[in-house]
Amino acid sequence: MNKRTIELSGHIIDSLTLTKTMGIIMDKGGEFDILEIDVGRKKSDISHAKIEVSADSPELLESILDELSVLGAAIDEIKEVNLVASVKDKVAPEGFYSSSNHSTHIFYDGDWIPVEEIEMDCLVVVDEDEKRAFVKPIADVKVGDKIVVGLDGVKVTPPHRSRDEQQVFEFMNSEVSSEKPLMNLIKGIASEMKEIKAKGGKIGIVGGPAIVHTGSGKYLAALVKEGYIDVIMAGNALATHDIESNLFGTSLGIEVETGKIVAHGHTHHMRAINRINRSGSIKNAVEDGTLTGGIMYECIKNDVPYVLAGSIRDDGPLPDVITDTAESQKLMRHYAQEVDMVIMIATMLHSIATGNLLPSRVKSICVDINPSTVTKLSDRGSAQVVGIVTDIGTFLPLLYNALHEE
Amino acid sequence: MNKRTIELSGHIIDSLTLTKTMGIIMDKGGEFDILEIDVGRKKSDISHAKIEVSADSPELLESILDELSVLGAAIDEIKEVNLVASVKDKVAPEGFYSSSNHSTHIFYDGDWIPVEEIEMDCLVVVDEDEKRAFVKPIADVKVGDKIVVGLDGVKVTPPHRSRDEQQVFEFMNSEVSSEKPLMNLIKGIASEMKEIKAKGGKIGIVGGPAIVHTGSGKYLAALVKEGYIDVIMAGNALATHDIESNLFGTSLGIEVETGKIVAHGHTHHMRAINRINRSGSIKNAVEDGTLTGGIMYECIKNDVPYVLAGSIRDDGPLPDVITDTAESQKLMRHYAQEVDMVIMIATMLHSIATGNLLPSRVKSICVDINPSTVTKLSDRGSAQVVGIVTDIGTFLPLLYNALHEE
Amino acid sequence: MNKRTIELSGHIIDSLTLTKTMGIIMDKGGEFDILEIDVGRKKSDISHAKIEVSADSPELLESILDELSVLGAAIDEIKEVNLVASVKDKVAPEGFYSSSNHSTHIFYDGDWIPVEEIEMDCLVVVDEDEKRAFVKPIADVKVGDKIVVGLDGVKVTPPHRSRDEQQVFEFMNSEVSSEKPLMNLIKGIASEMKEIKAKGGKIGIVGGPAIVHTGSGKYLAALVKEGYIDVIMAGNALATHDIESNLFGTSLGIEVETGKIVAHGHTHHMRAINRINRSGSIKNAVEDGTLTGGIMYECIKNDVPYVLAGSIRDDGPLPDVITDTAESQKLMRHYAQEVDMVIMIATMLHSIATGNLLPSRVKSICVDINPSTVTKLSDRGSAQVVGIVTDIGTFLPLLYNALHEE
Amino acid sequence: MNKRTIELSGHIIDSLTLTKTMGIIMDKGGEFDILEIDVGRKKSDISHAKIEVSADSPELLESILDELSVLGAAIDEIKEVNLVASVKDKVAPEGFYSSSNHSTHIFYDGDWIPVEEIEMDCLVVVDEDEKRAFVKPIADVKVGDKIVVGLDGVKVTPPHRSRDEQQVFEFMNSEVSSEKPLMNLIKGIASEMKEIKAKGGKIGIVGGPAIVHTGSGKYLAALVKEGYIDVIMAGNALATHDIESNLFGTSLGIEVETGKIVAHGHTHHMRAINRINRSGSIKNAVEDGTLTGGIMYECIKNDVPYVLAGSIRDDGPLPDVITDTAESQKLMRHYAQEVDMVIMIATMLHSIATGNLLPSRVKSICVDINPSTVTKLSDRGSAQVVGIVTDIGTFLPLLYNALHEE
Repeated sequence: MNKRTIELSGHIIDSLTLTKTMGIIMDKGGEFDILEIDVGRKKSDISHAKIEVSADSPELLESILDELSVLGAAIDEIKEVNLVASVKDKVAPEGFYSSSNHSTHIFYDGDWIPVEEIEMDCLVVVDEDEKRAFVKPIADVKVGDKIVVGLDGVKVTPPHRSRDEQQVFEFMNSEVSSEKPLMNLIKGIASEMKEIKAKGGKIGIVGGPAIVHTGSGKYLAALVKEGYIDVIMAGNALATHDIESNLFGTSLGIEVETGKIVAHGHTHHMRAINRINRSGSIKNAVEDGTLTGGIMYECIKNDVPYVLAGSIRDDGPLPDVITDTAESQKLMRHYAQEVDMVIMIATMLHSIATGNLLPSRVKSICVDINPSTVTKLSDRGSAQVVGIVTDIGTFLPLLYNALHEE
Repeated sequence: MNKRTIELSGHIIDSLTLTKTMGIIMDKGGEFDILEIDVGRKKSDISHAKIEVSADSPELLESILDELSVLGAAIDEIKEVNLVASVKDKVAPEGFYSSSNHSTHIFYDGDWIPVEEIEMDCLVVVDEDEKRAFVKPIADVKVGDKIVVGLDGVKVTPPHRSRDEQQVFEFMNSEVSSEKPLMNLIKGIASEMKEIKAKGGKIGIVGGPAIVHTGSGKYLAALVKEGYIDVIMAGNALATHDIESNLFGTSLGIEVETGKIVAHGHTHHMRAINRINRSGSIKNAVEDGTLTGGIMYECIKNDVPYVLAGSIRDDGPLPDVITDTAESQKLMRHYAQEVDMVIMIATMLHSIATGNLLPSRVKSICVDINPSTVTKLSDRGSAQVVGIVTDIGTFLPLLYNALHEE
Repeated sequence: MNKRTIELSGHIIDSLTLTKTMGIIMDKGGEFDILEIDVGRKKSDISHAKIEVSADSPELLESILDELSVLGAAIDEIKEVNLVASVKDKVAPEGFYSSSNHSTHIFYDGDWIPVEEIEMDCLVVVDEDEKRAFVKPIADVKVGDKIVVGLDGVKVTPPHRSRDEQQVFEFMNSEVSSEKPLMNLIKGIASEMKEIKAKGGKIGIVGGPAIVHTGSGKYLAALVKEGYIDVIMAGNALATHDIESNLFGTSLGIEVETGKIVAHGHTHHMRAINRINRSGSIKNAVEDGTLTGGIMYECIKNDVPYVLAGSIRDDGPLPDVITDTAESQKLMRHYAQEVDMVIMIATMLHSIATGNLLPSRVKSICVDINPSTVTKLSDRGSAQVVGIVTDIGTFLPLLYNALHEE
Repeated sequence: MNKRTIELSGHIIDSLTLTKTMGIIMDKGGEFDILEIDVGRKKSDISHAKIEVSADSPELLESILDELSVLGAAIDEIKEVNLVASVKDKVAPEGFYSSSNHSTHIFYDGDWIPVEEIEMDCLVVVDEDEKRAFVKPIADVKVGDKIVVGLDGVKVTPPHRSRDEQQVFEFMNSEVSSEKPLMNLIKGIASEMKEIKAKGGKIGIVGGPAIVHTGSGKYLAALVKEGYIDVIMAGNALATHDIESNLFGTSLGIEVETGKIVAHGHTHHMRAINRINRSGSIKNAVEDGTLTGGIMYECIKNDVPYVLAGSIRDDGPLPDVITDTAESQKLMRHYAQEVDMVIMIATMLHSIATGNLLPSRVKSICVDINPSTVTKLSDRGSAQVVGIVTDIGTFLPLLYNALHEE
């Protein structure tokens, strides 16, 4: 019989790591003995388990250990990571290790070194001179890059759920429902935001145009002005309708204050784009007095950076929009590494795109009236995202109020 | 060629009556000449049209006129209504006239007499001695009842949409969208409510348990206490969870203030029912001090009547629940005739049931986070209902605030 | 320190029983030592664990053990069940044990005896003469009934998920998604149905009128005729529109074969009810030749029983409809104990109602195009229900075909 | 009093043109007399109306006529179109005419000339030498372009709904419901497709990855192979998962035939992209034997062009993906002018993007299980799109079968 001992540690009960470990072993046809199990007595304690895995063949044993390593299981006999050089730009060796969004280390040259700029569905490339490891999107692979292959020497540390901390995030976890008390949730998010800002952390907003359509644009503008927001990631539509609502009082041709349809209002967004085109950029439009309020105005005035990522449904687009999606991703990737919290509001495209880029350590909230947006986000691997199914038209005003209450 | 002249009057352009009239004639294979058309010049004006309808056969002409009469077309040669006696309890003669929810008159014994207690999908029965006409549900038909058959002598007057009045109701009409400014809508409903109360009118609430689950129960209780609500039509669930939240602080086992799951909380609603059973009724429970707050408490304290209609998904049910659905309908029917406005919140079953009973003159609003509730309501004939797709957890607090602003 | 040893057995890893046990102990402030853990090596093996629970006070220990007993934990020192007599009809003693839908035993008079007719949210009443225990809805409690109070002496056995059996049920479990291959699922349901029928088991259908609206009525009628279905639980609407479609070719006034709106079609369902009223019952209508096809016709012809439960949104209703919801529940309760599988199609009301009554051992599938129906069903305790989000108009034809393929 | 006579012609009753005309005049505060009205007697007849519009001021009259011209009203005194030269690249003169997606003519130099390559939300630029007019997206405007300003001399001809033709398109129009018979609809689409192909017309598919996830990829591949499809407009995801399913049997890591989750399956799509990167393009991968089946394979083999438009949520992307959204739009624009019918399946992003580019004459169908996709498409101006709410996993197999029945 082929055997090997693995160790698990962390909140392995809460995080279901122990359950999943046993499940994988049984599913793949292996067997196990729990040699030791030391479960944390207090909520904040860390648990440890030592499990002997056995299998009929060395191959089966390897295959089981491979999968366990993704869960964060430490294998007694640590192996060096395998590196294979790329033979062509944008091409990885077969069997390349595909990254998760969790904190990751590789065992290289006798040491555990961290994988920097972690992001899911990428490759891990090692700089052998510097002895550093980086995540790289496949499109950035260059011939000669030393790429991690297989699971040997890779250690993944999923975020540990602990029962005490992060109340908001914990209690909603995994479940999407519109039948829950919302006020308390919003208060929780507000206090989380304040705490992050107090520690000097950064908060990003990912937003769709429904923020403006529903009349909530002024609340987001105020949050930018008051310093709560450190970056906005959005598309042409949010910016265009924000500007439309400031130039014409409408969003998609509907009067924002009253909800009435305005004659010829459906042309307003094109007229808004045209005016910004004349100024040359949103910044210029603020400076030359064309644009005097709103979300984008406050970003310019308060030096809050934004990424306006282009999409094929854009009209115009505004001169500030980055039409190359690879360029947009690059910039979003940069901010994804910087933020501590991201609130995604009413945009499936930008939320999934940002979710793809975020390390799992970032606190992420997705707010949408459509439960399927939240479901899809988590189907696509962004399991850490907390979903709130509610009306955007009321979420932002209520969040704003919660941030201003004592 | 067989011809007949019809007259249309009212807001026939806005209400599409003219368009539908021409459509019906063409669809059925008839022809028409517009003899006169006098369209209101001002928004509040009434329009008139005189149209000559012709068809190849007398039967076809009759059939076309039949359909037009439902639209409210007056036919020059007015015919007496046809009455046939029922031969058996609960059985109508074949070809019976099936009522709509619009104001209806019949031409009987040389006069136009109103059909009382109008409601869709019922029969019209004439009391020949009193010379009065009533709507009757098929289940209440008695042998010998004189029932209207066919469309002769029946005149239906749909509510006329006019452009000026009833802003809230107008601008949303027919369209269901979560991408609209909500705040203004809510203000419109609040001012409509105030106006109705100022005129001595009555407002009903139709509500589901999500009102309590989402923490909005206290706002509805306050509206009852403050005299805004004249009747509540709901089921066992709303009352049970309202009482649960007052006795145990939970709704469906979830703490209303915090959203946390409480140990054994899923048994609380059964314990709430048990306590009311011990008192004997909700009224007794208020009087003996078992129940000290909440929606049902305020109903008792303020003499606001309620209908708790039983359904097969009820636990318990509470002693106040009417388990016979025919009895429930009878009581709901009574209140449906009394109210001037109904707000339906987060319940598909009770909303559709109430929608079935309401005359089309009652201002009706249906609020749900799920657009399909609103769509179904209007598919089932309650076309006058205005739908709002939003989060119940924020709708009631915002409505409450709007009612209390100057 | 107050200590007690508990034992867990079954598929405690897969079913998360072990995880939940540790969670409860930690959440409530207790501590534990895993004394023994013997995990099944093969997939079909049963696991055992012996855990010592300790707490600061005897009260805390009791409270922890209370909760663990619901998970199926056996406590070393077994206590007799506590019985308290009801002092009033429909009233249980405070602290009554509220039943789950899982298999349950009580320790009474020195023996474990099964609780019969298990159903969630009910009481357990002991017949001391017969030494038998029964579930009783609160409405049926009579003064003097001996009712189980507290958790002592109650043992619950949740269904154990095993990895091999019940493929269909396993792989979908818990997740609701429309982005999954459907064909294979339908094949799995078909083979499950065949297996149940081969063993002499019973299959129930819970259905809404969309079955008829979408043109799938003929497939359900065929399944009834071919002996696949043993009972139908539905409401007035399914039966009425089924009969409407057979008498007039329409459902809710829309031609079933073509989807076209038929003039005056919205009165057809009232005319259908009227004709059945004339016959006196659906059975009479079949016998006197009024009704010659469809779902209800096949039920009559093939002696398949049905429950048509009344609701407040019913028009008519048909003479076969049970308008008293308590009576309907009683009959549904009877069939809920008999069936081995239930397929719930396109009805939130009847699905939740049936879900409330079903023992967790019954294989249950809920099919709806609206994901919220499935979510609500499981929020309300029917966790064993497998949800399929798809179009009813294609589900039944595809299921029918799958049952007829080799 | 300022007066002017307008003429309307076409299916002005059915299309609500007459109703809208009167509504606009009244809403803006004008008055009107219907001078003549000649309504088509047969269904296929064209109606005419002559209406005198009057207003208090010349400005008001102009403003009313402006709006009426968009409805297709012909104004007796025809004015020349106003042209203003652009003073800067990407900048139009204030007051520029913003195009609709309907057939449009301008009155230039004494003649009505057609506006070519019609598309909504663009500008109209006149080539004065060639005496031709073109639609131009704002991003393509060059300094000196002669751009139409205001509504003078612009005539829009919306598609006229006639009652007889295009049954499928007519009967579903405007309404989104999952409670309708689907089979007949699918047959209607199939016969429409056959008719278009018989006339040498072109059919485009706009598709999302759910086509592959739900196991319907093979049906789309077969439609491509059999010559039904002339162009595919999609993104990286459809192509990647199609290739993943052909290389690994999975889609997003789930086995397509069985719906089971495959170990490490979530890395398969990255491995699929890596293999295509190695080949250099999808075409190369087909030629070098890497890719041997599926949708993309059939496109290559049968010379069916495709547009893979990049988005910020793309992994990879595949080498065939156009990452610049402006470039993607340009190519999609090209195909949008060529096709006679477009079927949009399970993608909100690509459906709205394509909807933006399509002339209203193209028959467009949008199929999604989520009703909000269809609603949004029509909120954004693509009113001609027919929506079907159903399960993709069954739609494509049923459409395939309908195309192969006699």
